[in-house]
Amino acid sequence: MHVIEGAINSPKGFTAAGKHVGVKKKRKDLSIVLSENPAAVAAMFTTNKVKAAPVVWNMDVYEKGKPIRAIVVNSGNANACTGKKGMDDTVLMAETTAESFGIKREEVIVASTGVIGVPLPIDIIRDGIKELSKDLDEELISGLNAAEGIMTTDTTIKNIAVEIEIGGKAVIVAGMAKGSGMIHPNMATMLSFVTTDADISQELLRKALKQIGKDTYNMISVDGDTSTNDMVVVMANGMAGNEKITEENKDYRTLYKALYHINEHLAKEIVKDGEGASKFIEVKITGAKTTEDARKMVKSVLTSNLVKTAMFGEDANWGRVLCAMGYSQADFDPEKASLEFEASGQKILLLKEGLPVAFDEDYAYELLQNRDIKIHATLEDGEAQATGWGCDLSYDYVKINGEYRT
Amino acid sequence: MHVIEGAINSPKGFTAAGKHVGVKKKRKDLSIVLSENPAAVAAMFTTNKVKAAPVVWNMDVYEKGKPIRAIVVNSGNANACTGKKGMDDTVLMAETTAESFGIKREEVIVASTGVIGVPLPIDIIRDGIKELSKDLDEELISGLNAAEGIMTTDTTIKNIAVEIEIGGKAVIVAGMAKGSGMIHPNMATMLSFVTTDADISQELLRKALKQIGKDTYNMISVDGDTSTNDMVVVMANGMAGNEKITEENKDYRTLYKALYHINEHLAKEIVKDGEGASKFIEVKITGAKTTEDARKMVKSVLTSNLVKTAMFGEDANWGRVLCAMGYSQADFDPEKASLEFEASGQKILLLKEGLPVAFDEDYAYELLQNRDIKIHATLEDGEAQATGWGCDLSYDYVKINGEYRT
Repeated sequence: MHVIEGAINSPKGFTAAGKHVGVKKKRKDLSIVLSENPAAVAAMFTTNKVKAAPVVWNMDVYEKGKPIRAIVVNSGNANACTGKKGMDDTVLMAETTAESFGIKREEVIVASTGVIGVPLPIDIIRDGIKELSKDLDEELISGLNAAEGIMTTDTTIKNIAVEIEIGGKAVIVAGMAKGSGMIHPNMATMLSFVTTDADISQELLRKALKQIGKDTYNMISVDGDTSTNDMVVVMANGMAGNEKITEENKDYRTLYKALYHINEHLAKEIVKDGEGASKFIEVKITGAKTTEDARKMVKSVLTSNLVKTAMFGEDANWGRVLCAMGYSQADFDPEKASLEFEASGQKILLLKEGLPVAFDEDYAYELLQNRDIKIHATLEDGEAQATGWGCDLSYDYVKINGEYRT
Repeated sequence: MHVIEGAINSPKGFTAAGKHVGVKKKRKDLSIVLSENPAAVAAMFTTNKVKAAPVVWNMDVYEKGKPIRAIVVNSGNANACTGKKGMDDTVLMAETTAESFGIKREEVIVASTGVIGVPLPIDIIRDGIKELSKDLDEELISGLNAAEGIMTTDTTIKNIAVEIEIGGKAVIVAGMAKGSGMIHPNMATMLSFVTTDADISQELLRKALKQIGKDTYNMISVDGDTSTNDMVVVMANGMAGNEKITEENKDYRTLYKALYHINEHLAKEIVKDGEGASKFIEVKITGAKTTEDARKMVKSVLTSNLVKTAMFGEDANWGRVLCAMGYSQADFDPEKASLEFEASGQKILLLKEGLPVAFDEDYAYELLQNRDIKIHATLEDGEAQATGWGCDLSYDYVKINGEYRT
């Protein structure tokens, strides 16, 4: 597997485009991704009880299990809490996209992200789709434009492509995502779209995403702690010409690794662009009784405001980490817990088998001045482990979120 | 029921004292409360997997079900993550207190609060207990000193006393508490102690506290989201001379109301003293399917960083409230949800049956400039309701917690 200069339209048979049509004041606000062939699709949708209209549409399309052809995304308006008009608007987005390419509306996935409770400027979007549909191509710049068109408060585009070989055929996997304010991903919609020209059965593609999602997107978020519009969509159109993957063989594992890499990369990129984040924090728990226990502890540490502010303050306050593990409801023996912080290859041991270790405060402070910090807890309860990613809680987080709508 | 000028030692037969003995640099750091008679005891302890030594001691005492005589509390050091020495020190605190008053060590509840992972300065505390035990009396100032001796980062003492009448007898219920940083009560230990001279069976006292705890302390906190040292202890010594309450009759209900009032007051006081808090927020959900659903939604809204920063920013961002209800895992119909903010008797409707209501932003901004804000969601899923209390997330919260140890 090697990273290539590419974008969402790099896999064979995919085209894309993104442009400004007028939902936002100036920046790009509409993107379309199209596959020449019907593509197998795997997806994850928000578990929030409050679901935006496009999520309701997609879940319906998805459950029918048919291949899809296109994804249309507007940014600047989430089309959430918009009642019957919201649903009509989503259907119109799917229909307009379908008409533009001569495909069925049930072959179109729709996504919206931005402010909630405001009706979509549907005329602008409908005209925009018609116009944008003429711009789709395979150029890198068009793929990058698509990645830009889905952004809201993101400060960087999130884009990646890798090439792998399956049975002698070159296969490309590419992805783009948006999501900022993921410090606590309550309202900051996370959208992630992945394309590949690999030939794989839809059943196996869905199986792969289900597993990968648990280890990537769900480890930057608390279960159920999702916005009204979150989604991850993977399309595989089979145009690489590899022998179709229909069982969990070597080819499956090769593709799985590439999909894992793409999704982990996008998930981490989202965290790194967290609103007001000054630190990128990795939490790893090893020696846990079960994977579920390890995940609970990782998430509890990552979402603790007290751990996050300690990281912002560059304070080696290990007690807060242990405490967050303690209230995670995971089963573990605190008297066997060891804890260390790591940055730039330097480590500092803070707790050994439940007891504090005397450490050099100056050294700890120096270590915590790094941007990337790893927190590693070692338990003696079993063999399970989990890793997750988050960021600190800074003055800027409060500033950005205190002033969001104003 | 009327509030009286009183403290933890106001109920008949209780004495108390608090003073500086040297755990902290200057401020009071040791308190003792004593009952002349063995008192029925009800308590709640932290559910954190990591339990400080005094919590382990108390749980053991509590399970034996015997009446108790005294509570000894030091502040400045939590005696948590201190291994075998920690447990020995706790036992020594109980023993020294018992010896000072000629009671049994199993009649002593021990509490510690402050930094974790540092051994107790046990010689100072032992000598302090011996000294302080001579100071106990019924004077108001001594009760207030006791309330001061349990404080850590608290900015105000938390103290209350009420008088009620049961069967013609005057009964007093009093309480003191500490707890700051309760914005997210991870590491900020909450201690609450309540005394009464009411005569009630231990069984009923425990039943009352179990119910009251769910509606008060647990509604300023997320289940399991507790520190290593949290506890609530209620002592009832029966010296008011009322006919002993042994069933859930009118007398029980009278006492229940007083206990409820005391505990609700202390819980709210803790929230109001939240680190860096500039707003006091009450969240109420009515029309929920079950009480459990209502509680989940209340807690989810209260602990959402995005709701909290919106309150700090005085921004009527109702979408964040609805979203937090949505990911709470509670069962409700968002399309029937209505939402309003209230302050100083003024109300503003933001969402009616799932759809946004156009509102005057200037009026909303003016309303949110109040210190006390109520968020009220009305559902149409049933008859259940719940109320909880929290505060905003401010620059000062980040500042205080980023610099805690330094």
